[in-house]
Amino acid sequence: MNRIITISREFGSGGREFGRRLSENLGCAYYDQEIVQEIAKRTELSEKYVQQVIGHRPISSFPIHIGRSFRMMPDPHLEQSCSIYREQCSILREMAAKSDCVIVGRCADYILQEENPFRIFVYADMPSKMRRCREKGYEKEDLTDRELERRINAVNRSRAEYYEYCTGQKWGDHIHYDLCINTTQGTIKGIAAVVSRLFLPQPGTENE
Amino acid sequence: MNRIITISREFGSGGREFGRRLSENLGCAYYDQEIVQEIAKRTELSEKYVQQVIGHRPISSFPIHIGRSFRMMPDPHLEQSCSIYREQCSILREMAAKSDCVIVGRCADYILQEENPFRIFVYADMPSKMRRCREKGYEKEDLTDRELERRINAVNRSRAEYYEYCTGQKWGDHIHYDLCINTTQGTIKGIAAVVSRLFLPQPGTENE
Repeated sequence: MNRIITISREFGSGGREFGRRLSENLGCAYYDQEIVQEIAKRTELSEKYVQQVIGHRPISSFPIHIGRSFRMMPDPHLEQSCSIYREQCSILREMAAKSDCVIVGRCADYILQEENPFRIFVYADMPSKMRRCREKGYEKEDLTDRELERRINAVNRSRAEYYEYCTGQKWGDHIHYDLCINTTQGTIKGIAAVVSRLFLPQPGTENE
Repeated sequence: MNRIITISREFGSGGREFGRRLSENLGCAYYDQEIVQEIAKRTELSEKYVQQVIGHRPISSFPIHIGRSFRMMPDPHLEQSCSIYREQCSILREMAAKSDCVIVGRCADYILQEENPFRIFVYADMPSKMRRCREKGYEKEDLTDRELERRINAVNRSRAEYYEYCTGQKWGDHIHYDLCINTTQGTIKGIAAVVSRLFLPQPGTENE
């Protein structure tokens, strides 16, 4: 079985950079935006549209994780959400079957649970998330601190809602992860270097 | 300022062993039962009684963290709880002032917040906690699995209630910790070895 590491992350926490560095340190594949690109290709929808669907829970619909045992009124948006989710599941399973990898977001921790992934949740306090957003230029507009905080909270609320819609689990609840890392203190590079060691052989500790 | 590492831990998660190994790896002081012993000495109460008070939220009383701005009816049990908590705060501050240390439990993460401690929460899934309890002989009685599970849940509920009573914060909510570690997979020794590296100099990562 391949070693699968999934990263769930708060917007602004540096989780994407953490995942990328982890994959570099471990010399394994890294999947992030590639998942959206592949879904767009297979569904013949635009990347932007797929990204928007993946980032938001459909309005007034049954959770995907419960399944559907009865016919509902046809709802084209909902049907499209479901078909995107089906592709997302197929693509993630293909990626996991191919080689060791780090996968960022997209409910991979839940979708790939049978592969026994190592599930990491990355978060930070608000001032740190705001600082990182400004440094990385995620927000090109000239937002006030208050506006930026609202934007960060809105993105994270959407992620939480989409995750809960797909999995029935609470996003960020430690019980669903193997490691939860607060990146407020320390550098992403330094934290990634330490966490990489969890996956590399350490002399003298394997059989004790 | 000394390096203070606090460990909050679910009963059965191996958090105590983790803390001890971390202190050994870092060559720093380790405080756990010593805190109860010192409180007992200073308050002239028995260790067993102090342990019981620290492990349980007083019934029908105001949270300690809110403080008391008005006179209430005298309540000897509550007064004793408060005097134990005051000693707990003094002792923890003295320990933190003395040298680098690892402190297990006793709301040290909250009480020492001005020292900017590195706050770790250690947890595990239920089968793993049950297995560890049986291995360590925490439960000498011949409990059924169901009884042991109830016992573990009861201890952890008490810890959560006492923590919330003292701090006003939710025990185990990742936002109050720097690192949350699920010990279900891997050995405590192996995890402690990796986490120790967060506190040891790593060549090439300090200034990046």
